[in-house]
Amino acid sequence: MIRTHEAGSLRREHAGQRVTLAGWVARRRDHGGVVFIDLRDASGSSQVVFREEDHAHDLRSEYCVKVVGEVRVRPAGNENPDLPTGEIEVVASEVEVLSESAPLPFPIEGGSGVSEEARLKYRYLDIRRQQIADAMRIRSRATYLANQVMNEHGFVYVETPTLTRSTPEGARDFLVPVRLQPGNWYALPQSPQLFKQLLMVSGLERYYQLAKCYRDEDLRADRQPEFTQIDIEMSFVDQDDVIALGEALIGRLWKDILGYELPTPLPRITYAEAMSRFGSDKPDLRFGCELVDMTEYFAGTSFRVFQAPYVGAVVMPGGASQTRKELDGWQEWAKSRGARGLAYVLVQQDGTLGGPVAKNLSEAELSGLAAKTGAAPGDAIFFGAGLLNPTRELLGAARLEIGRRCGLIDESAWSFLWVVDAPMFEEDGEGGWTAVHHPFTGPKPEWADTFQDAPAHALAYAYDMVCNGMEIGGGSIRIHRAEMQQRVFDVLGISKEEAESKFGFLLEAFKYGPPPHGGIAYGWDRVCMLLAGGESIRDVIAFPKTASGFDPLTGAPTPITSEQRKEAGVDAKPKAAEPQG
Amino acid sequence: MIRTHEAGSLRREHAGQRVTLAGWVARRRDHGGVVFIDLRDASGSSQVVFREEDHAHDLRSEYCVKVVGEVRVRPAGNENPDLPTGEIEVVASEVEVLSESAPLPFPIEGGSGVSEEARLKYRYLDIRRQQIADAMRIRSRATYLANQVMNEHGFVYVETPTLTRSTPEGARDFLVPVRLQPGNWYALPQSPQLFKQLLMVSGLERYYQLAKCYRDEDLRADRQPEFTQIDIEMSFVDQDDVIALGEALIGRLWKDILGYELPTPLPRITYAEAMSRFGSDKPDLRFGCELVDMTEYFAGTSFRVFQAPYVGAVVMPGGASQTRKELDGWQEWAKSRGARGLAYVLVQQDGTLGGPVAKNLSEAELSGLAAKTGAAPGDAIFFGAGLLNPTRELLGAARLEIGRRCGLIDESAWSFLWVVDAPMFEEDGEGGWTAVHHPFTGPKPEWADTFQDAPAHALAYAYDMVCNGMEIGGGSIRIHRAEMQQRVFDVLGISKEEAESKFGFLLEAFKYGPPPHGGIAYGWDRVCMLLAGGESIRDVIAFPKTASGFDPLTGAPTPITSEQRKEAGVDAKPKAAEPQG
Repeated sequence: MIRTHEAGSLRREHAGQRVTLAGWVARRRDHGGVVFIDLRDASGSSQVVFREEDHAHDLRSEYCVKVVGEVRVRPAGNENPDLPTGEIEVVASEVEVLSESAPLPFPIEGGSGVSEEARLKYRYLDIRRQQIADAMRIRSRATYLANQVMNEHGFVYVETPTLTRSTPEGARDFLVPVRLQPGNWYALPQSPQLFKQLLMVSGLERYYQLAKCYRDEDLRADRQPEFTQIDIEMSFVDQDDVIALGEALIGRLWKDILGYELPTPLPRITYAEAMSRFGSDKPDLRFGCELVDMTEYFAGTSFRVFQAPYVGAVVMPGGASQTRKELDGWQEWAKSRGARGLAYVLVQQDGTLGGPVAKNLSEAELSGLAAKTGAAPGDAIFFGAGLLNPTRELLGAARLEIGRRCGLIDESAWSFLWVVDAPMFEEDGEGGWTAVHHPFTGPKPEWADTFQDAPAHALAYAYDMVCNGMEIGGGSIRIHRAEMQQRVFDVLGISKEEAESKFGFLLEAFKYGPPPHGGIAYGWDRVCMLLAGGESIRDVIAFPKTASGFDPLTGAPTPITSEQRKEAGVDAKPKAAEPQG
Repeated sequence: MIRTHEAGSLRREHAGQRVTLAGWVARRRDHGGVVFIDLRDASGSSQVVFREEDHAHDLRSEYCVKVVGEVRVRPAGNENPDLPTGEIEVVASEVEVLSESAPLPFPIEGGSGVSEEARLKYRYLDIRRQQIADAMRIRSRATYLANQVMNEHGFVYVETPTLTRSTPEGARDFLVPVRLQPGNWYALPQSPQLFKQLLMVSGLERYYQLAKCYRDEDLRADRQPEFTQIDIEMSFVDQDDVIALGEALIGRLWKDILGYELPTPLPRITYAEAMSRFGSDKPDLRFGCELVDMTEYFAGTSFRVFQAPYVGAVVMPGGASQTRKELDGWQEWAKSRGARGLAYVLVQQDGTLGGPVAKNLSEAELSGLAAKTGAAPGDAIFFGAGLLNPTRELLGAARLEIGRRCGLIDESAWSFLWVVDAPMFEEDGEGGWTAVHHPFTGPKPEWADTFQDAPAHALAYAYDMVCNGMEIGGGSIRIHRAEMQQRVFDVLGISKEEAESKFGFLLEAFKYGPPPHGGIAYGWDRVCMLLAGGESIRDVIAFPKTASGFDPLTGAPTPITSEQRKEAGVDAKPKAAEPQG
């Protein structure tokens, strides 16, 4: 090693020792011939004193330097109790510039308000900042702890292929031309789902992997074209086993990294309850403002807007004092979400009800409204009316917005829960059904024989872990019986040919004594973001891409030359018969 | 859990307990109304006894079953001391078929001689075999241990991008069209080299990753289009630091998994010595038969074949007794390697020298030959003559072949060493130079100022770890000074434009105080193959591809539809100016 000590490791007990440090010039102060430099390395920083300016005269910000000097206790009054090394300084006797730095595009120390584009273009400088470097280290620590937990539970780490089979139905697959088999393409996997189920057929019983997954989709909602999940599958288990493992994993992470004791077993609420109380399948339980079902209440209303399959309400504490502009803002907000608007009633301090909707309601409807919704004087009541699910979702979103605007969310709190018993199927809008999870998700035991008769009501043996209103993990107990799988395909209208083309090899494998199995996958970027206190998954990804999939650092993606096109076999016609070549 | 106990865990002390097992029917024997079944799960197997045949009558091979029964000590004389569970059996009272199995394409138990194609097509059945499952578990264990070692040494696990920049010069890159930016492509990385160096610029100081790498090349020599490496980079280090870390990592693996104590520090030999003594840059030291340099010896020879820049010899013990056919076989062997043949002299038991070459040599040349080469009566001496490097490589290959044919290699032995001081450059055959490692590899300190003046002799600050004649890891101390990097580019004839296009973002990063750094990468598939005692890396890859990149299991790669082509933007023209879109 070029150095003898790490800059952040020096303490009072090192006084008198001759040390060699190596790191970066973080800050420089000149005081009448004496120069003070904060020398930063991965461990922290130490103050280095140059007695004569000429030693230090060409040391500028972010130069990489090696310094030899003697540690001494700082003169009384000069200590910095905020720094672990604040009691000492290093009096330099030699300095060597290991490499110089050009003027920086943005300051490393203390610079805030730098555009994200600049930060990503110079990500290697951005990571020199304490907060970003800490996020990288937290992610690393989390990965290490996850390996530890999985090892303790007897899981086998298996790497599954990332160059795999493309299927015509696999929209959003990234495709990869294969030079050795011109005209044939691999696909990058959206998840190792099929392979992890194959590993259960193989009898490994307990599989996990830190798996790279790929999805070529619009990158709304803080997504990346490549992302990581902790992918887990287990044989001979029931839902409770997977849930217990998930709690052990997440519990270890929060305990070790944040000192937070996960209150296990975590609460479980059903999908139906989550939708009904919170208008969300990933409710944030850090605050109240639950939805109130007003359908019965308005069953006989003459107000046309409320003559709907579902009417619900959510109360905004203190919302009656909003300005007209703020109230109009809610309408814009609702329209941006595809709704026509957000009806509201204002409960004045004297208990009278105001707002445009109030005049459309009957005396009886008005008189019981505050009590029914739980609104107090000064509150606003927002209403949604329409089809059940979209209306609940609108109110659920309004609830979150209320929580944010009114500061109801305790940002230091953690709210973990499981949402269970999601529907197996949802209508596809064309008279058919699609799988809410994926077609290998099993029904709850009580629906095993009958799900095909009532697809709208059948419940899946699925479970999602939710933290602070975000889904961080999800999984299910899978189908392992061919006849049950066939019934699911029948509901989904998947023909034998389509099933064969999409996942024929999995169906083939299931002929050979597949064990009952189930699993879960955690969105690792999101888990790490929560652990690091980040606001975006980009905060915990070393080299993230922008929303359009562009990498400001490398400039990827780029056009390719006709030479590359030819070499990669992009335009080759596949040989007719055997892809095996 | 469906079961109460693992089948492989039952012992004498469980006798009398009622247990529930779940697993696969591995073997079945019927003995007059009583049926014995070996029930296998991931932990091992237990013998299950069915008193009445009707309980067991439909249990066939590889059915997945659940059995409830009572553990009892086997009747005296029926114990199986070879099995951990050989003292007990489970008397079944209930059995449930969890899933049936179709007739198997090949037997799981005891079946050898199954074609690799069948094994890969039904890989999930192949993995049910003890040996293959064990290989998967050894790889998992190795991965866990590697994480442990790297954690103990303060390394930060960082995931680097796998959708990255394609460069026109990056032959063998897999390319990926980007739907969101039609006409633009990502490339899959051949290694995280550039990113790990960026992470050093970022000040993380110690990076590692279990990294997926991709290379679209002819899959000779047991390669796969996707492979895994343990990728490591460190700042402020010298060669000795990286070597010590590599020994700590490999030492832990061999110690924990195989009980073998790595004799650290491992021997280091220079590239020059390895080539001169063994004709290989990855010598197998498990046997002797070193090359003998005969150039001086034959300096004045009149034998035309030996009038060459280099003449070398290697001795085959007992080789004089080979048949004419065997000796002819060596000629074929040499020709298949591109040589014209392999001259030889046979040392007869009486000391006289035979073979066609002998008559071309002078009396003086013959008389000292055995002593000079170290050949004993009964040995054969093989000769190579020609250009230095290719001739040494031919003799090095002959040496390995001799080792194999003569059974000189102790297959139970481990031979680890470092090969250091490789050349920086080699001739590109067109009057220029190419980098032996890559263009960021630094020169040895003594060549720092002068490598450009003697490219043929300059030594790189590089090191390869070799095990049993295989390179398992390699790395170097990198260049971190712009002016030195420029001198390397000058030697390599890389123009400013080319450097900019290939790795401009790394050169840009190097303007901002890059630290001295170096690293190493281990070929993880190969390391795991050695640990598992496999013969091919396919033995330690869950779902490997064949030599042509074909996956017999999924059928990948496949043609794509015109719909997919259009969707993925394969044929789109990139927008002229900004790729950022």
